[in-house]
Amino acid sequence: MDGGTKARGRRPGGEDTRGAVLAAARAEFAARGYQRASMRAIARGAGVDAALLHHYFGTKDRLFMAALEFPLDPRAVAENVFAGDPATVGERVAGFVVGMWERPEVRERLLALVRTAATSEEVAALMRGFMVAELVGRVASRLEVAEPELRVEMAMSQIIGLAMARYVIAVEPLASAPPEAVVPLLGRALQGCLTG
Amino acid sequence: MDGGTKARGRRPGGEDTRGAVLAAARAEFAARGYQRASMRAIARGAGVDAALLHHYFGTKDRLFMAALEFPLDPRAVAENVFAGDPATVGERVAGFVVGMWERPEVRERLLALVRTAATSEEVAALMRGFMVAELVGRVASRLEVAEPELRVEMAMSQIIGLAMARYVIAVEPLASAPPEAVVPLLGRALQGCLTG
Repeated sequence: MDGGTKARGRRPGGEDTRGAVLAAARAEFAARGYQRASMRAIARGAGVDAALLHHYFGTKDRLFMAALEFPLDPRAVAENVFAGDPATVGERVAGFVVGMWERPEVRERLLALVRTAATSEEVAALMRGFMVAELVGRVASRLEVAEPELRVEMAMSQIIGLAMARYVIAVEPLASAPPEAVVPLLGRALQGCLTG
Repeated sequence: MDGGTKARGRRPGGEDTRGAVLAAARAEFAARGYQRASMRAIARGAGVDAALLHHYFGTKDRLFMAALEFPLDPRAVAENVFAGDPATVGERVAGFVVGMWERPEVRERLLALVRTAATSEEVAALMRGFMVAELVGRVASRLEVAEPELRVEMAMSQIIGLAMARYVIAVEPLASAPPEAVVPLLGRALQGCLTG
């Protein structure tokens, strides 16, 4: 799954080429946003062959995750977490989200991303473009409700709000509440706006 | 209700004194946080009599709102919006919050506060202290549920998340959706975590 690790071990160019590709990817994503960024332009920017880039880094979403050290795979979230009974999707998503944030190495990376996005409109737009392209549409198509995209974005906003309050700003008693207390509350809130 | 306006018209010291009081209040709130800030220290900082300060600016929450141009009165929210049938509190709160953000002059001020809080840990802590002291406890005591404070904070985090997504980051289609589409979704989410 991790194109970065694969590239590290097997690419002939080694670390230098990998570093050049990730730098070129960051520059292209920053300049054109997620949806308009092109793998061809990234290959050109790094001075590598486009076919090789695809071979070692996979699809654009994989390269994005490697370049920005983005710790969640939205495709896997759509396929594993949102799949299953729609009547309990809120609790599944809540459990997944809180579970990820409780892992120290993931939390550290997410905090860095949130802080960067909070202070840079460009980074916020880039993250938004990535999530909309790779998560919102996939998830919305699974919900059999009116205005699914609006609902999915409302749910994402609730998740971001919880993350800000519990992990970034650390409001008490929310910050110290055990995950078992937070997950059902967030789950009901998500369920309410996803399928309510 | 607005101690600032009252002070402007009737205080003997006029604008200079009012300005000195608000500056002293901002300094004291910034230095000691909302709950530990003292009206006596603010009066001393502004060189005015403590009894006069109370007379013209009212209670500490009024002075805070005047000093930070805070456009929502949490006490009124607790008494008017959270009062009434708990089974429909989510929709009432959602309607109130979205209604406030839709008013251009309120939105402008809220955006400025959110942006400042997002980039300054001190300001975020100050806002948090104010909301916890003046809103969370009052509202929590009205909800006949387990862990009311945790629920109220979860609800606040959802409101902040919505405000960030719809008004600050402006994710589409959420940013352009009419209030009538957003209020029921937010209402169900809030209801789910407040009383669900």
